[in-house]
Amino acid sequence: MPSPEKPSAREKLLAAAVKLVRAQGYAATTVDDLCREAGVTKGAFFHHFESKDALAVAAADYWSETTGALFASAPYHDHADPLERVLAYIDFRAALIEGAPAEFSCLAGTMVQEAYAASDDIRAACEASIFGHAATLEADIEAARVKYKIDGDWTACSLALHTQAVLQGAFILAKAHGGPEIAREMAGHLKRYVQLLFRQSKGERK
Amino acid sequence: MPSPEKPSAREKLLAAAVKLVRAQGYAATTVDDLCREAGVTKGAFFHHFESKDALAVAAADYWSETTGALFASAPYHDHADPLERVLAYIDFRAALIEGAPAEFSCLAGTMVQEAYAASDDIRAACEASIFGHAATLEADIEAARVKYKIDGDWTACSLALHTQAVLQGAFILAKAHGGPEIAREMAGHLKRYVQLLFRQSKGERK
Repeated sequence: MPSPEKPSAREKLLAAAVKLVRAQGYAATTVDDLCREAGVTKGAFFHHFESKDALAVAAADYWSETTGALFASAPYHDHADPLERVLAYIDFRAALIEGAPAEFSCLAGTMVQEAYAASDDIRAACEASIFGHAATLEADIEAARVKYKIDGDWTACSLALHTQAVLQGAFILAKAHGGPEIAREMAGHLKRYVQLLFRQSKGERK
Repeated sequence: MPSPEKPSAREKLLAAAVKLVRAQGYAATTVDDLCREAGVTKGAFFHHFESKDALAVAAADYWSETTGALFASAPYHDHADPLERVLAYIDFRAALIEGAPAEFSCLAGTMVQEAYAASDDIRAACEASIFGHAATLEADIEAARVKYKIDGDWTACSLALHTQAVLQGAFILAKAHGGPEIAREMAGHLKRYVQLLFRQSKGERK
């Protein structure tokens, strides 16, 4: 009988990076911390990654993949109306904001905050994660613009990125305030903004 | 003749903390880095601050004071209409977003992102900085609500905090993207949201 598939040392290190960086930041997380959390040796670490920065880049990619799978299978896609899909996405994000910041904050946003200048590879991997996720919203926003004949002075790309800006900022307020409620409240403003963008323009249509 | 006033070692260390943490994050900034940047000895450092964390708390307070003075004397207060003051505040924030992220990003937002769990003193000092600045906007937002008879399901306090969430998130996008334009674009969404909140409700008034 084949044994159940166990995570590899590489996967354990990636999961450890996600957990520790969300909890304590990137620079404060040492290779020793990562090995201890993953339960692997330093030899195993350097077999898989040539440096902590190399792990950070791989962790940002791993984060993009794992959260990408979560979002791809989320129920907000099921609405027939594209504006409803966008609003349900925001509700879905708000519902994920629960517990401690280490459980709901963004690995890419946390890492790039510190490491953007020190490592262009980390910056680029975090950019790909945040901007790549924003891009998954563009088609629905654009379809809603077309359906509701909206012609404001904003693009689907720009509004998609704004959703991410609000959420990243909301995580910072939650960390500062010591609880998730304030971050959910900020998601509420984001939803109201999207509703107003579409309602307002409908009202102004002749 | 009295000699011109020179910054004290304490002031030099506080200014060094603001500069280095904005550029490279808090955990990556060592006491040695801070002493080198400030041009003071390690003895002077520990004469003024018992630890790096103690300097961080003092730096967040120093940040609140120095940025507080900048905002207190800024021209957005001069508009007669309270809604115009709020919109001019957002324009003022957008105009400050120029150059490298180390020049326009927020010390408190950067520090709390990393250190919120490690040091409750740093968290609280960053909360006081961000939430205290947001509070300076509340009176104008509330006056605008009253003047334009707005009764949406949001409070002046909550909208004031939302302005800070958008700006904090905008800085993260700018760091990820490698330039200030994206952050100014996010400030544009924030301004449009405030305009819509007031326009929409005016349109709905009977």
